[in-house]
This record gives sequence, structure tokens and C-alpha cells, in this order.
Amino acid sequence: MIQRPRGTQDFPPEQMAKRRFVENSMRVTFKSFGYSEVQTPTFEHLELFTAKSGEGIIDELYAFKDKGGRDLALRPELTAPVIRMYVEKLQMDPKPLKFFYFGNCFRYDRPQKGRYREFMQAGCELIGCDSPAALAELVALAWFLLKNVGLKNIVLRIGNLDFISRVLDDLDIKEGVRKKLFPFIDKKQFDELEVFMGNEGFSGEQISSLLGFLKCSDVDEVKGFVNDDNLIKPFEEMLSLLPMFGIEKYMVDTSIVRGLDYYKGMVFEIEAPALGAEKQLCGGGVYDLVPLFGGKQVSTAGFAVGFDRTVVALENEGYSFPEERLKAYVVPIDNDSLPYALKVTMECRGLKIPVDVDLTGRSVAKSLKYANSRKAENVVIVGERERETKTVTVKNMETGEQKNVTIGELLKVLKG
Amino acid sequence: MIQRPRGTQDFPPEQMAKRRFVENSMRVTFKSFGYSEVQTPTFEHLELFTAKSGEGIIDELYAFKDKGGRDLALRPELTAPVIRMYVEKLQMDPKPLKFFYFGNCFRYDRPQKGRYREFMQAGCELIGCDSPAALAELVALAWFLLKNVGLKNIVLRIGNLDFISRVLDDLDIKEGVRKKLFPFIDKKQFDELEVFMGNEGFSGEQISSLLGFLKCSDVDEVKGFVNDDNLIKPFEEMLSLLPMFGIEKYMVDTSIVRGLDYYKGMVFEIEAPALGAEKQLCGGGVYDLVPLFGGKQVSTAGFAVGFDRTVVALENEGYSFPEERLKAYVVPIDNDSLPYALKVTMECRGLKIPVDVDLTGRSVAKSLKYANSRKAENVVIVGERERETKTVTVKNMETGEQKNVTIGELLKVLKG
Repeated sequence: MIQRPRGTQDFPPEQMAKRRFVENSMRVTFKSFGYSEVQTPTFEHLELFTAKSGEGIIDELYAFKDKGGRDLALRPELTAPVIRMYVEKLQMDPKPLKFFYFGNCFRYDRPQKGRYREFMQAGCELIGCDSPAALAELVALAWFLLKNVGLKNIVLRIGNLDFISRVLDDLDIKEGVRKKLFPFIDKKQFDELEVFMGNEGFSGEQISSLLGFLKCSDVDEVKGFVNDDNLIKPFEEMLSLLPMFGIEKYMVDTSIVRGLDYYKGMVFEIEAPALGAEKQLCGGGVYDLVPLFGGKQVSTAGFAVGFDRTVVALENEGYSFPEERLKAYVVPIDNDSLPYALKVTMECRGLKIPVDVDLTGRSVAKSLKYANSRKAENVVIVGERERETKTVTVKNMETGEQKNVTIGELLKVLKG
Repeated sequence: MIQRPRGTQDFPPEQMAKRRFVENSMRVTFKSFGYSEVQTPTFEHLELFTAKSGEGIIDELYAFKDKGGRDLALRPELTAPVIRMYVEKLQMDPKPLKFFYFGNCFRYDRPQKGRYREFMQAGCELIGCDSPAALAELVALAWFLLKNVGLKNIVLRIGNLDFISRVLDDLDIKEGVRKKLFPFIDKKQFDELEVFMGNEGFSGEQISSLLGFLKCSDVDEVKGFVNDDNLIKPFEEMLSLLPMFGIEKYMVDTSIVRGLDYYKGMVFEIEAPALGAEKQLCGGGVYDLVPLFGGKQVSTAGFAVGFDRTVVALENEGYSFPEERLKAYVVPIDNDSLPYALKVTMECRGLKIPVDVDLTGRSVAKSLKYANSRKAENVVIVGERERETKTVTVKNMETGEQKNVTIGELLKVLKG
């Protein structure tokens, strides 16, 4: 038996219905915030991803050559492709541009629980406006994307990479060394960070200053470490606007460093505690990629949501997804009733009602059993009597109630 | 500047809206026929595709190795993956199973007009029922999928591979030679076929018999070449049921051989003349893959629709796609009006109305120009007067009409 590749997923009907439900809800929210959908190819030139993340990323990519010998890679994320499309053909469009997308992404690592080699991301990019209000709106969009889909418990943390850069500058900690500290900071392993810095020969003052800064939980505390209104004011203004966008609860977190190299300025993350250890659902912020891809400098910000994890978080919270059910299963009692059964079926379908009909010629009992397995809401039985009277017998599969109605009445029942 | 890979496509908002419109229409039609959506991974084990098409297909695939050294390939089509999923985990489900899907597929050939290296297919598989009525329903589904989406002119041709197999058997033309004839037959190059057969040493009787058969255009003519009720009767019955499924017009075409090796029995194709030379939109029929993938013998049939071509065919027919427009663009006259503008905006968004708001702080004139470029239906202006009276000034961008209304009235206008 040929199996699906390791680290990938199949989605049978029930799972797929949940995914489309989540996707549709997110699409409506994106559009309500004035965003428009875009789509880019599944693979890109390899250099698109190495340009921003360095050659090291190649080990994590599915890479291959095309017929012209060019190096291609399955996309590991969608920001770089969308910005590549912007640079290639949309630079002249009126700003701000607000794009959202859904797309499968690929990561070439050892599969683990909750981490797949193919996974889906939802996300968006805001191009050409980075006012505090615009950034507050972006954070609010991420928040409502997850709230509107039905998640009850999510946690929003907001930080700013300019703050930590300034603190590291002030402490005279150089670029090369910073990269060694970030993994500890990213995982909030502050005890381990303290030991590591001690071993690396940092002074007690350097260590305590950095740790003090990393533990800030509001802007006033940050001011004790970052004494620059040009950095603090816009951030404060953004935070002050969040309630007007409907966000009542968030945390300032100065220890967000994000895994990717191209972020700068405001960054944020949203977690779903229902997910347990792998709880991060969304991450984003202000970044800088356009000049790297050969475009004219413009402000850019965005975020990505782990789509698969959102579905799991909803399941873990016990969310009751709407069921997609067959409205009716039509059963011709005998072969002579088939044409009439088809007429009834096709009239329903003409109104786009999800209806199926038995075409196997099996017994009514077997058809009822099948209708049950399909969770049909009604079974519509047609035989000689129904044909002659131009009616159908409808059985409601939940109540067991059975009645004889005209086709017009049937359509009304199924539509309503 | 890094460009998108050759043979791939970007879809900016306007194009993407058309694609989602077509996808949604198709999804509604699939569901109305009792089909449920499924999804499989973007890549599969290479052997899934070579098992059915032979090693020769590797040249047409994007293939690469995974970390375990296994050969993988981006899927060139979706029938094999869906049947792989069925064999792997759904064999015990009550039959018939009716699955539909949308998915991007990949073909590693030289890009040409209308042929991309990454393209999208819509399609379906029917597992566990091959009665004449079930096959007629399958053909009708393909027909209505394209009709319901808005195509005016499509042409349906139906054939049966069992007929040509029988004719070739009767003419004593062996398997190895048949493969050489099929490319001519597939392209309806009957003159070239005649010359080729002559050169290959076929008798005049063999040549005229085969050509006579290939030019059959109804079942009665076929009977002159295929004298077997077991083959003819079910096909005739299927054709007789097509009008009951709403299909009034089709052609019998005995020269359909389909490119793929796994078809058998009934086959059909649908063309859109609006597409010109590359006019085929849909192809399908009865096939046999389950045993090849290690599953228990069961009847299978299905079809695939070229999604990208469907969009182009609609464009070529001059179809007027519904426009996705911003319902309103909210403009705060001054900075003091921003909080009130946000309140109005977020109330609209709470009702899922697509609304945007100026957060750049630019002049009202510039905002109006931007609202125009975004094709906003209305501009909502708020300043000191509106704040004080808890109203907004709405300008209809089509009629130019401007009026002062309450927020409640605004929501009604935008919702209606």
C-alpha cells in the first residue's frame, strides 16, 4: 500500500468542512478590515528565501532545480512571496495596500506533534502606512480573526524590537554576540541566559540591566531602560488606540524577538493556552523586505496565523463546528420510480440544495441505513403512489415524522 | 529584482476575486450533487504516479528526495492522491463515496500559452457505484459545474473505451501497436492515421473498419462495429438517462481515448469553444486504480476540470463577474475625529461589512481620491459637527448624493 508522505496530512470530509468553516470566517474578517485576497505560486526562486534568512535556511527548505537549472524552493512562509509580487508588479498602486492570503507552506524538518512538513498559513501584509493607528488596526485584525472564528481564550503580547536594540546598544553588546542571546530570550529562559552571560564574561551590571529590561510588563517600566521619546511615543500612542479597535486586554512583552531576521519595530504574538506546549497561533509586526527585493523603500507590516493550529485550538476548546449535512436523500422504491426520483432530485439541486439520490437500486431499508450514515436530515421516498399523485413522502430523520407533500412543499421545507 | 518562477502565476486582488467566485460556485454545485470536499498533500511518494503511468512520467514531474531519502513528487493531478487516501483510510466507509476537491497541480514542461507549470484543478471521484444512472449523474455534475458558474457555450462528448478495445481486438491489432495509433486518434488526425497504418502494413479492411468506427456519432452506428449487448446496453441506458439529469445536448464520440492509461469504459470530455485551440475544459470517466494501490476492487469514476481555463473561458465569453467592493471608506476630517471614526468603522466591521478607514492622517481630498481608486461605494466623513451630533456624512460615490445620518441608519444603508 502506498502511504501519504511522512509529516503530511489528508483531510477527509469532516475535517475539511471544519477547515473551510475557519477559512471562510477568517476571509470575512479580513475583508471587513478592508483587506483584499491575493495568491502567489507554491514555489519561488530559492534566493527569495536565502536573501532574507541566509544560506542556513536551505536545510529547512524543499529545494529543487527547474528545467533551466534554476534553484527553486517550496515556500516556507508567505510574506517574502507576497512582497516579491508587490515589488514585481504592484509598486505603483495607491497606498496603503492591504493584502491577505491563505496558502500551504513547507518545512523540511523532522515531523513532531503539531508540526507538519506541509501546513497552512493565513496572513496579511500592510504596505505603505505605519502610523500608530495603522499598526493598532493590524494587531486588532489578528485579534478579531481569531476571536470571530470562535476562540474564547487567546493571549496577546506586544513588544518592540527597537527597544531591545537600544538596550543592547547602550550595554555595548555587539551584533555577533546578540544572536547567541536571542534563543534564550525567545524561549524566556532568563535563568539560563544569566548563566550563559556570566560564562561569556559579561559584567554583573550588563546582566542585571538586560534581565531587568526583559521583565518589563508596561511602557512606564520600559522608560527606565529606553530614554528616547522618538521610540517610546509612537508605541505608547499605538497602545492607547488598541481599546478603540476593541482590544481590552494585552500584555507588553519586551522579550519578544521573533525568529525571523527581517522584523524591526513593533512585534506581537498571540497564543492559545488550549494548545498546550506549542501554543503560539500568530506572530507579526513591522518588517523591512522591499529594498532587499529591489523595490523602493516603503513601510511594511503583517502577520501570519497558523491555520492548522487554529483548527486544533478550536477543537481543544470544545468549539461546536456547524455540521454540513445532506438536506435530503431521495429513495426510489422501484426502478420505475427512478425518473420521478431524478426529477425531484434535480429540482432540489436547481435551488442548490445539497441532495443525494439512490442510484444503486438497493432496497429501501439499505438506503435508509446509508442515509443515516450520511447524516441526511430527511429521506424522500417516491414510489407508485407518489408518482401518481405528484407528491413525495418525506421522513424527518431526527423526529421520525413522516408526511406526504407536493414537490413545491418539499422544496420549501428543504430550503427553510 | 527577484521574479516569480517561469510558468507560474501571481493572482492580485481582482484576479483572485474572480477565482474565489468560480470556486464558490463550483463548491455549491458539487455539494448540491451530494459530494463532500477532501484535501490531500501537495506532494506524494513518486511511486504513486509511476505506478499508474510508468517511469516515463518522471520527466514531467517535479521530483525530489525527503530527509529519509524517499522519492517525492509534486502532484501532477488529483485522482491518484484521492484514491491513495481512500485506500489508506476510507475503504470501510459506506458506499457510494462522493468526494470533490480543489488543488494546485504541477507539470514540469515548457510553459506555453494557457499551460502553466502550476495550475489548479477542480474535480471529483465517485467510489462504489457504477450503475448507468450513477455515471449519467457524474456527467451531469460536470455539465452543471460549468453551466452554473456562468459558461454559455460548452460542448459535451461521450465515448466508451470498451468499444475501441473490442474493435481493435476484432481487427487483431495487438497492444504494442495500439499505443502508436492512440496519439493520432486522440487528436482526431484520421488522414494521418490512415497513412501511418498503411505504412505499418495494415490491410485495407483493417484501416477502413477502424476509421469507420472512429467516425461513429451515435450508438446505432456503433452497433455496426460492436456486436455485444453487454457493452452496448449499459451505455445506451446511461445516455437515455442524461435528459432526466437535465442534459439536452451531447455527442457520442468513439474517438475519445484520453491521455491517461487507467481509464476504461465510459469516458467524456467537455470543451469551451471560447478558449480557441486549447479548448478542453474537463475530462473524465470510469477508471481502475484502487487495486493498483493495494485496495480491494471497487468501481471508481471521476473527472477533472481545468480551473484556470474555466476562468479564462468565462472572461473570453464576456462574463460579468460580481465586483468585490469596499462598502465604505471612513475619513476623519482631523486628528480629533479619529476616535469617533474608529468607533463608526468598528461598528460596521462588527456586522462584517467591508469597510476601511483612513489612518494616514492625509487630507480629505486625498482620501477621496484613494477611496475612488479602491472603488468604495460610499465615503463616510466625520468631523466636529458629526461627533457632536453623533451622526456621519455619507457620500454615495456613484450618485454623488450626500446626506447626514445616524450611525444606526448608516449600518442599515451599508448592510442593505
